[in-house]
Amino acid sequence: MPLSEFALRRAALPRQMAEKKLDAFVVGFGPNVRYLTGFTGSNGMLLVLPHRSVFLTDPRYGIQAAQEVDCPVRVVSGPMLPHLVALLRRAKSKRVGFEKARMSVESYLALKDAMPMRSSLEPVAGWIERQRMLKSEAELSAIRRSVELNSRAFEQALRRIRPGMRESELAAELDYRVRRCGADGPAFDTIVAGGARTALPHAPPTDAELRRGQLVLVDMGAILAGYASDMTRMLFLGKPDARVKHAYLAVLEAQLAAIDAVRAGVKAHAVDRAARRVLARHGLARAFVHSTGHGLGLEIHEPPRVGKNDQTVLEKGMTITIEPGVYIEGFGGIRIEDTVAVGERGCEVLTPTSKELRIV
Amino acid sequence: MPLSEFALRRAALPRQMAEKKLDAFVVGFGPNVRYLTGFTGSNGMLLVLPHRSVFLTDPRYGIQAAQEVDCPVRVVSGPMLPHLVALLRRAKSKRVGFEKARMSVESYLALKDAMPMRSSLEPVAGWIERQRMLKSEAELSAIRRSVELNSRAFEQALRRIRPGMRESELAAELDYRVRRCGADGPAFDTIVAGGARTALPHAPPTDAELRRGQLVLVDMGAILAGYASDMTRMLFLGKPDARVKHAYLAVLEAQLAAIDAVRAGVKAHAVDRAARRVLARHGLARAFVHSTGHGLGLEIHEPPRVGKNDQTVLEKGMTITIEPGVYIEGFGGIRIEDTVAVGERGCEVLTPTSKELRIV
Repeated sequence: MPLSEFALRRAALPRQMAEKKLDAFVVGFGPNVRYLTGFTGSNGMLLVLPHRSVFLTDPRYGIQAAQEVDCPVRVVSGPMLPHLVALLRRAKSKRVGFEKARMSVESYLALKDAMPMRSSLEPVAGWIERQRMLKSEAELSAIRRSVELNSRAFEQALRRIRPGMRESELAAELDYRVRRCGADGPAFDTIVAGGARTALPHAPPTDAELRRGQLVLVDMGAILAGYASDMTRMLFLGKPDARVKHAYLAVLEAQLAAIDAVRAGVKAHAVDRAARRVLARHGLARAFVHSTGHGLGLEIHEPPRVGKNDQTVLEKGMTITIEPGVYIEGFGGIRIEDTVAVGERGCEVLTPTSKELRIV
Repeated sequence: MPLSEFALRRAALPRQMAEKKLDAFVVGFGPNVRYLTGFTGSNGMLLVLPHRSVFLTDPRYGIQAAQEVDCPVRVVSGPMLPHLVALLRRAKSKRVGFEKARMSVESYLALKDAMPMRSSLEPVAGWIERQRMLKSEAELSAIRRSVELNSRAFEQALRRIRPGMRESELAAELDYRVRRCGADGPAFDTIVAGGARTALPHAPPTDAELRRGQLVLVDMGAILAGYASDMTRMLFLGKPDARVKHAYLAVLEAQLAAIDAVRAGVKAHAVDRAARRVLARHGLARAFVHSTGHGLGLEIHEPPRVGKNDQTVLEKGMTITIEPGVYIEGFGGIRIEDTVAVGERGCEVLTPTSKELRIV
């Protein structure tokens, strides 16, 4: 029997462990556990030993883990820590790696207290996250389907939009369409903002009505087979004036410039700079208050960041968003966002939705 | 001007800090930050000093924080840590408390490295969580409205259920109704499971069709004005046989026994025991694989746990779920869940939805 996709992913770890002289590696962060085992529940932990891995979960997930996970499963009641320590003791693990960005100080102190004398906890950072940045063909295909589903749901919901609709109603409609199109659910809290509220980059939808003469910002994503998509589009109810059109075109120009800058071998900050340069030329540099984009996959935000100081070299198989935006208090905000896949000589824009300012 | 609700909540902290000889307390966990400041965004940090508090956020939330937060706001670009350290330095804080259950080892190590000589980081646990257990009248009213909304959405969606509907379609319908009834959104990933899949206590909905002769488990909640609700109900498509009826009545009896056990002064484990005893009498002790309930409020799961070993003494103003369940592989699972508010002489069941096995 060939190794499963998950076993192949786990296979990279013992070598890294050996380099750091680790006898064991504890993985507790949900998306990392899912990546390494296929487990889709909310409470699981993977203990990676040099020659085998053991998966721990609680009784709520016993049946599910047996179906999903391809390494030995221990179903344990009560706190997981004593069971983990017992396994470490039995394996005679001396140097035990843990995910320092994911383990709380509380868990760290409790684990340290419970571990055998002369064993130590060694911080590890980014091993699995780095592996996760490069998507396999199967993952790319899942992300592509997630992106396409998300765009389909957007178009379906758009048919229902009319002046007088509340932001929260449009958000509910978008989420419903995402689900009805077959997604596991929305990838994050859908953002719908009208008028001056578009100036809040992360506004939760309110009961405010969408009115004629208003900009509307929609930022939405889907989760399909565990994988996220992410898209932002702008609508206008009625006829936009010159200032809106100018700002829209400036952001669009910045977004296209950033997309043009994406290819394997380029550093992430260079993509960010491409967007920032265009907005600066339009006098909008200070209105662009966030990064140009972020990686996405099993998480809606994952490495690399596409920001001012990000030194990550883009590689084929990375999936990132490109989403410059401008936010001006009193006037409003404009953001345009696609999901793209990095390629050797450029990138593929996965998002099929057209990018003109939608007049409704 | 009277102190705001949030200022009153923060007012309890300097005394606790003085008891532990702390000059500062750093709060970074979202629900705790929201509880203490009213901030609804996703990235904020509160620095509590003996005589004032300072709120930090990033530029995406500058406008929003100015509207929501009633203490001084610093909008900072890039990593927040250097700004936090600068504030600690200016305040000459020597002993700095942090939330040990919420801060990652990575953040802890970075903060420790950046802090001035002779200053120290001191772990703090549960201060805000304990305060949050006891709900104010305003919070109870928010939870009550969240619970009622959730039940309304359930009834609306139920009118649409029919054999042949997919689990995922019913979940989409439930989420849509929750949103259309005015919620911020679902409180967690809605669970809809049919037939043998009900035996997975936390099953994500699949494309499986709901068929005649099947049990259907629905576990859903809403977030309204930040506060969560949580309810589980069982449906049956057609005519249930004796085994289903027997198991259903056993779980219902256990749920009612647990509700009867709730009142101020009782320990949480006694409530759990009340449910467990009934199920044991029906030979179902081993099929009850989780705790009887959990606190809820700004989080869907928060203290107290209502489990086998929980020593928390229940107090008036706590809001908890009561949700015993049995799970039998191949047969299916049954869970019945209400949200209740602890009172002096008993509890108030907030959930208005009837608890018979719904025949559809």
